[in-house]
Amino acid sequence: MNSMVLYVDLNADMGESFGRYKIGYDEVLVKYVTSANIACGFHAGDPLVMRKTIKLCINHNVAVGAHPGFPDLMGFGRRVMEVKPEELEAYLIYQVGALMGMARSLGVEVQHIKVHGALYNMAWTRADYAEAIAYAVKSLKSNLILVAPYNSAMAKKAEEIGIPVAYEGFIERGYTKEGRLVPRGKPGALIHDPEEAANRAIRMISEGKVKTVEGIDIDIIVHTLCIHSDSPNADKIASTVRKRLEEVSIKVVPLRQIIKIK
Amino acid sequence: MNSMVLYVDLNADMGESFGRYKIGYDEVLVKYVTSANIACGFHAGDPLVMRKTIKLCINHNVAVGAHPGFPDLMGFGRRVMEVKPEELEAYLIYQVGALMGMARSLGVEVQHIKVHGALYNMAWTRADYAEAIAYAVKSLKSNLILVAPYNSAMAKKAEEIGIPVAYEGFIERGYTKEGRLVPRGKPGALIHDPEEAANRAIRMISEGKVKTVEGIDIDIIVHTLCIHSDSPNADKIASTVRKRLEEVSIKVVPLRQIIKIK
Amino acid sequence: MNSMVLYVDLNADMGESFGRYKIGYDEVLVKYVTSANIACGFHAGDPLVMRKTIKLCINHNVAVGAHPGFPDLMGFGRRVMEVKPEELEAYLIYQVGALMGMARSLGVEVQHIKVHGALYNMAWTRADYAEAIAYAVKSLKSNLILVAPYNSAMAKKAEEIGIPVAYEGFIERGYTKEGRLVPRGKPGALIHDPEEAANRAIRMISEGKVKTVEGIDIDIIVHTLCIHSDSPNADKIASTVRKRLEEVSIKVVPLRQIIKIK
Amino acid sequence: MNSMVLYVDLNADMGESFGRYKIGYDEVLVKYVTSANIACGFHAGDPLVMRKTIKLCINHNVAVGAHPGFPDLMGFGRRVMEVKPEELEAYLIYQVGALMGMARSLGVEVQHIKVHGALYNMAWTRADYAEAIAYAVKSLKSNLILVAPYNSAMAKKAEEIGIPVAYEGFIERGYTKEGRLVPRGKPGALIHDPEEAANRAIRMISEGKVKTVEGIDIDIIVHTLCIHSDSPNADKIASTVRKRLEEVSIKVVPLRQIIKIK
Repeated sequence: MNSMVLYVDLNADMGESFGRYKIGYDEVLVKYVTSANIACGFHAGDPLVMRKTIKLCINHNVAVGAHPGFPDLMGFGRRVMEVKPEELEAYLIYQVGALMGMARSLGVEVQHIKVHGALYNMAWTRADYAEAIAYAVKSLKSNLILVAPYNSAMAKKAEEIGIPVAYEGFIERGYTKEGRLVPRGKPGALIHDPEEAANRAIRMISEGKVKTVEGIDIDIIVHTLCIHSDSPNADKIASTVRKRLEEVSIKVVPLRQIIKIK
Repeated sequence: MNSMVLYVDLNADMGESFGRYKIGYDEVLVKYVTSANIACGFHAGDPLVMRKTIKLCINHNVAVGAHPGFPDLMGFGRRVMEVKPEELEAYLIYQVGALMGMARSLGVEVQHIKVHGALYNMAWTRADYAEAIAYAVKSLKSNLILVAPYNSAMAKKAEEIGIPVAYEGFIERGYTKEGRLVPRGKPGALIHDPEEAANRAIRMISEGKVKTVEGIDIDIIVHTLCIHSDSPNADKIASTVRKRLEEVSIKVVPLRQIIKIK
Repeated sequence: MNSMVLYVDLNADMGESFGRYKIGYDEVLVKYVTSANIACGFHAGDPLVMRKTIKLCINHNVAVGAHPGFPDLMGFGRRVMEVKPEELEAYLIYQVGALMGMARSLGVEVQHIKVHGALYNMAWTRADYAEAIAYAVKSLKSNLILVAPYNSAMAKKAEEIGIPVAYEGFIERGYTKEGRLVPRGKPGALIHDPEEAANRAIRMISEGKVKTVEGIDIDIIVHTLCIHSDSPNADKIASTVRKRLEEVSIKVVPLRQIIKIK
Repeated sequence: MNSMVLYVDLNADMGESFGRYKIGYDEVLVKYVTSANIACGFHAGDPLVMRKTIKLCINHNVAVGAHPGFPDLMGFGRRVMEVKPEELEAYLIYQVGALMGMARSLGVEVQHIKVHGALYNMAWTRADYAEAIAYAVKSLKSNLILVAPYNSAMAKKAEEIGIPVAYEGFIERGYTKEGRLVPRGKPGALIHDPEEAANRAIRMISEGKVKTVEGIDIDIIVHTLCIHSDSPNADKIASTVRKRLEEVSIKVVPLRQIIKIK
């Protein structure tokens, strides 16, 4: 292990409840993560839920981020939709603006943006969506950090136009040799063992490597690790990963401190 | 007529289209008004429509305002809904925040907020809704002007907590002796003649009076006059009123300049 | 206790999940009730949830009913809305028609309709809503039974125009001397003890009486008893009430058999 | 021209308004067409609009059909969405059921179903969507005719499982040599001249041929011709086509009479 100080952010999706409908383990995860991706009312979340979630983050000193998605509440933003880039750009500005207003009304700033679900997967490789995301973030002129996978189209496009990007790693998901996630339902898609997830996290941060389902190592850079919020053992994963990272002296801090350091 | 210089703002509801659905005469009205109330996606409007409407306002030097409403697209925000004050507050911050993000992305500031439809009517007299509106505006800490009727609960509550308020007059609607609007469908509810509307406008501004359906004069203070955007003769009303105001040397300027003057 | 055979139906609201959002204990309650009120996509439910819920009912020999509500997913149909009677009538026909199509596609008939939430409360006394409900049911010409409180405006209006009505009793809610429910949040609004609920159920059926929060007895007729689906002890209430009813030889059967008998 | 009697149905999309939003020229088109495809509330339409549209059809002796689409009001159902076949099947049954209920409440039967927009285009070739459509129609057991293009996946799948199918021809759209429509925006996509549209209509019916943009003839069978409802000259196209068809003794009758004849 490298002797210089290493840092990482832990993020989780939060605020995905809607009206009377409750989803997720926000109250638990908020104790372990340093950044929250808060749904903005299109694929999940509603204004009151957003407000309560920001308050929860403030109480636990967790940084607030926007988690915009497709306008598809019935599909939870997990379904492919073909929208025009100008539509996508407007949808993102709308959702992030709404969260920024909500954060401002509670006295905090929005730290980052991470797009949700099918949009995240599509913008990993798709140029038009990657561009629309980059333009939306840039136009908001709010120093938002874009959370995106290392080497993804959306990371590259954002960097190209001068937006700060934080690379995200998935410790509970298998990777292919192309650096993409193994699709859910395929062998090796999910990593359930908290210790294994923690080991992967440590290796990504300290060595910059992850072993793929094909058994080879690929390069990866991570500034933030995603803790899935909807798995039944999210609690166990989050606490184990956090504890293990701290044991090997990797400092867990909000994204803003890492991207400054970078 | 008073010899000192008088000012008034002209406002109209804009951006009420949705997806493929078009409503209103924005391209025409934008030539006559000085402030636009832009729908924010709950009762009307969508992100792309909001974006295009702000661009239209920028091109015509019209100030941008938020026009949030109840979450009722099917009823166009014109139906009474009983929501909790904390819900209403969150709905307003969300919608205004979304418009602020959109405006920011296009390089302009949001000047004012005017609540829409049934919400406007309810908050005219209802304390809980008036409070929720005032708190929402205040919490956004963005120097927004609240557009509200003279003597209304929402105007009073806003002033009480230090929010700038602009009083709105309706020149195409009849007033009762209590200073409320005559309900649509009742005799005297609507004024169709552009010249009569212009005369009422001039009298409201220069004398601070309006004649009610009962035939008596009541006091009224107006900083901004509403031009209805959906009447077939909106064009004629707007152009006539603007011309007549200028003929009697009443300066038509955006709200921000008037509320500064006040 | 009367020696002649007594009958009652047990109903519960089901199918209130939406997309990834889960609500309720349908899998448990379906074992105890004889009729299900299935949400129709306006205040809760979606087409896939409706389909799965009907299949669940078929598997447990539970009769299928429509549970239409206001178009307010964010408020779960529990918020007062003022809609025109012609709008309400159309909303009801739409929702019930959708459920009838879904039921037909699975080989069953819709037995009854019970309106949901704020609409149920409003139509208890309000003539215009009661009429719209009655007309909607009648126009569907499908021999649907309307579930409504004894002595309510909607029960009376429905009977007046020849629609079969089943009177519903609430065994977990307190009644006022006017025969209305004690509003949630007031003392005596909720009855948590399963044995007490069962005792009330038995008395309603066998004696036609219920004791109000004021301590007096009022008359009540019940053909069906509502088991709340969202209380944490719904399971316990349902099983206790069902067991106790059977112990005193009250037969628990679907509504269709009772209304025929009536 | 063939001397035996020829028949065709003329269909148009109707009932695409929503709340206060008006789209289309229903009052005009209803005078020329014999079948109406009525939006069912997902991509367009609402319960009250559906009701009024059915009444309009009844008054003009026009057959009523369901026009279900993707759950995407903001995109008017014209955007590609990837939904699971079981979701699609449920969406269709829901929408068609709603229209069947509405029709029944007004004393008429639903004659046909034609899926809308992006769904229509996708199911032209895509097996999973074609199957979901066929299964949905079959499960409704209501003798509905499926309107679909000749040789399309959805037509074939429907016929395979015993559903009556009516082939639809587009007289205002260019065809490719593969028998698909030329995408909007490409040269030859649109035919604006009413006389040319009428000529194409007559040739499709009497010769079973249509000339493609490549200049060759391909085979086509048509039982119904689509009159686009949203083009500014819909009126002119509809009246011209209807007149020209009658001049050459092609009888314009509702689909039910043709599919019976077939």
